[in-house]
Amino acid sequence: MSLKENPRQLKSSENRGTYRNFPMVPRVVYGAGSLDQLGDILMPRRKHAEAPVIFLVDDIFENSPLMQRIPAIFEDQIIFISADEEPKTVQVDALRDRIQNDFEYKPSGVVGIGGGTLLDLAKAVALMLNNPGTSAQYQGWDLIRQPGIYHVGIPTLSGTGAEVSRTTVLSGPERKLGINSDYTPFDQVVLDPELTRGVPKDQWFYTGMDCYIHCIESLNGTYLNAFSQSYGEKALSLCHEVFLGDLPETEQQEKLMMASWHGGMSIAYSQVGIAHALSYGLSHVLGIPHGLGNCLVFQHLEPYYSAGVADFMRMMELHQVCLPKGICAGISEGEMDTMIRVAMDMAPLWENALGKEWRSKIDAETLEAIYRKI
Amino acid sequence: MSLKENPRQLKSSENRGTYRNFPMVPRVVYGAGSLDQLGDILMPRRKHAEAPVIFLVDDIFENSPLMQRIPAIFEDQIIFISADEEPKTVQVDALRDRIQNDFEYKPSGVVGIGGGTLLDLAKAVALMLNNPGTSAQYQGWDLIRQPGIYHVGIPTLSGTGAEVSRTTVLSGPERKLGINSDYTPFDQVVLDPELTRGVPKDQWFYTGMDCYIHCIESLNGTYLNAFSQSYGEKALSLCHEVFLGDLPETEQQEKLMMASWHGGMSIAYSQVGIAHALSYGLSHVLGIPHGLGNCLVFQHLEPYYSAGVADFMRMMELHQVCLPKGICAGISEGEMDTMIRVAMDMAPLWENALGKEWRSKIDAETLEAIYRKI
Repeated sequence: MSLKENPRQLKSSENRGTYRNFPMVPRVVYGAGSLDQLGDILMPRRKHAEAPVIFLVDDIFENSPLMQRIPAIFEDQIIFISADEEPKTVQVDALRDRIQNDFEYKPSGVVGIGGGTLLDLAKAVALMLNNPGTSAQYQGWDLIRQPGIYHVGIPTLSGTGAEVSRTTVLSGPERKLGINSDYTPFDQVVLDPELTRGVPKDQWFYTGMDCYIHCIESLNGTYLNAFSQSYGEKALSLCHEVFLGDLPETEQQEKLMMASWHGGMSIAYSQVGIAHALSYGLSHVLGIPHGLGNCLVFQHLEPYYSAGVADFMRMMELHQVCLPKGICAGISEGEMDTMIRVAMDMAPLWENALGKEWRSKIDAETLEAIYRKI
Repeated sequence: MSLKENPRQLKSSENRGTYRNFPMVPRVVYGAGSLDQLGDILMPRRKHAEAPVIFLVDDIFENSPLMQRIPAIFEDQIIFISADEEPKTVQVDALRDRIQNDFEYKPSGVVGIGGGTLLDLAKAVALMLNNPGTSAQYQGWDLIRQPGIYHVGIPTLSGTGAEVSRTTVLSGPERKLGINSDYTPFDQVVLDPELTRGVPKDQWFYTGMDCYIHCIESLNGTYLNAFSQSYGEKALSLCHEVFLGDLPETEQQEKLMMASWHGGMSIAYSQVGIAHALSYGLSHVLGIPHGLGNCLVFQHLEPYYSAGVADFMRMMELHQVCLPKGICAGISEGEMDTMIRVAMDMAPLWENALGKEWRSKIDAETLEAIYRKI
């Protein structure tokens, strides 16, 4: 049959609004030991000997053998940063100012090596080296006007999806909120699953659960489409293999790294939900790390995500993880109000979780009741 | 526990070679009706009014309502191309020459709208507008020296993965072989599942099976790693849903579009295998379309891919697809020799399928026996 016999009728349907033109990380190298390719990857990006590469590295790696593998040459600078606290806008601004002060020339690039905190800092610093003012003024959606400088992400923890997302979540003076922009994603990601060896178990679990929980939120959300669904389903099934299966350690590391990657991609046309909204409040007021915060909230979300919470409880039991208790016991009314405000401000998350009429389905009392259980 | 108590030992392991730094499509928009965003997407890429956008469009859409949705302005040119034959190097060179002849200025971009043939032509023409000589001299791996001009892929058929791959497969004077390079992938892809409505059933099936078959080949190959495995598994499970399940038509279109996308990604650190190698011979000598060629070969590959072939047979039965028979009945010895040579030349495919010692595991007689069954 000639195809011409069947001209396909493809009229435009009614106006359905516009879809995000999603920026993907344009270069990714995956493989055990791929960190050792970083020098070759950076070389063509070096503008000249006095335009350094800035390496932002989790300070857990200070004095570790990893440092000998970082290809710092010329005027390059390695800055160690603690990931004990969530990244802050003041920290981003201070790093930017320090780099601008230390060097005559704008850096050739910024490389973040660590978990979500280090990756988010690297993204934010790269943006702020090309955008004026304070990073706090860019918290929100599409407020960044200029592309950042070249930036590379190298995760050493799997779960947040920060290596692939178009946001960098920062605690600012007003709120914990991401700098969401088309310029935020890394120009290059190095996925070396060996770098996730030896993560302390609790941190491994909480960070992995960040991925698991955002998949549950994304797959149960109202924003979902087939693109995000396919990534979210794959990330979720990898989480099931890792946290409910019985894999050899190397395979566990590889699969969790890919779960994090696909989980991050699943947010392209979706959103996280209730656990993330409430977790943002916990982080902002009490400085609770993001992954732990998600777990603390998610355990109490059975009414919203019943199957997901049931599996989460099995994972906790299987890995003998005990979440801390009494976190919100001693907080003041003012702090509680702030937590609730921060959580309630996350309109897209609530709309994704509960639909356009979300304001009629949730209120401050419900949120306070959840916080009081934590 | 402070993280500092547990410094992680991350020494470099022995030299394990280098991994490909894979180029991903940097921008993708997904959604029903997203074709209507093309004008806005192209606008900032237009260099000036006399640097046209060239639209290469499957001629099945000539006089169809789709044409009213193509945002051709200024000096833009729409070129209709038949997809009845596989793309050829001489065709690419002729298109390049025509465009260079018709316009004083280099085009602002090339947009391919159609199935794998149109997408591969668009990629190749974009490359050849910035690289001298004939496209045949770039068939192979990493021979392209200059980035192509801006190029956009808009699939109207799902399965080949051409929208996301780093190759453009062309029949040349010597062989059917791709221009594999970091500059080959599209700068932008528009995934509008509505554009795959109304594809004739056989074509829908053969093209979808291209995806199914390359997933089977990739997942059973020796090159596989966790990155490619995760994409391949997702693509395969979507193929199962589409071809063995009972989905509403819209969902079927959406899921097959994503299967094609993930299937293409799965080749990043993998390769196709025996069906593709033999299919290349069929296309080169007999002009058999790629998807059909894969099916014709794959039905006889039970010794190599037994579970995959069994499911393929179920899919054929379920969709009442009858493959043509006697294709190789009348061919000459010379043609047979050429087919075998073209197939055997695909060393990476054989190595992926059968391991480094593949030359001791396959011979011309085995290939001829398979071809004779077709």
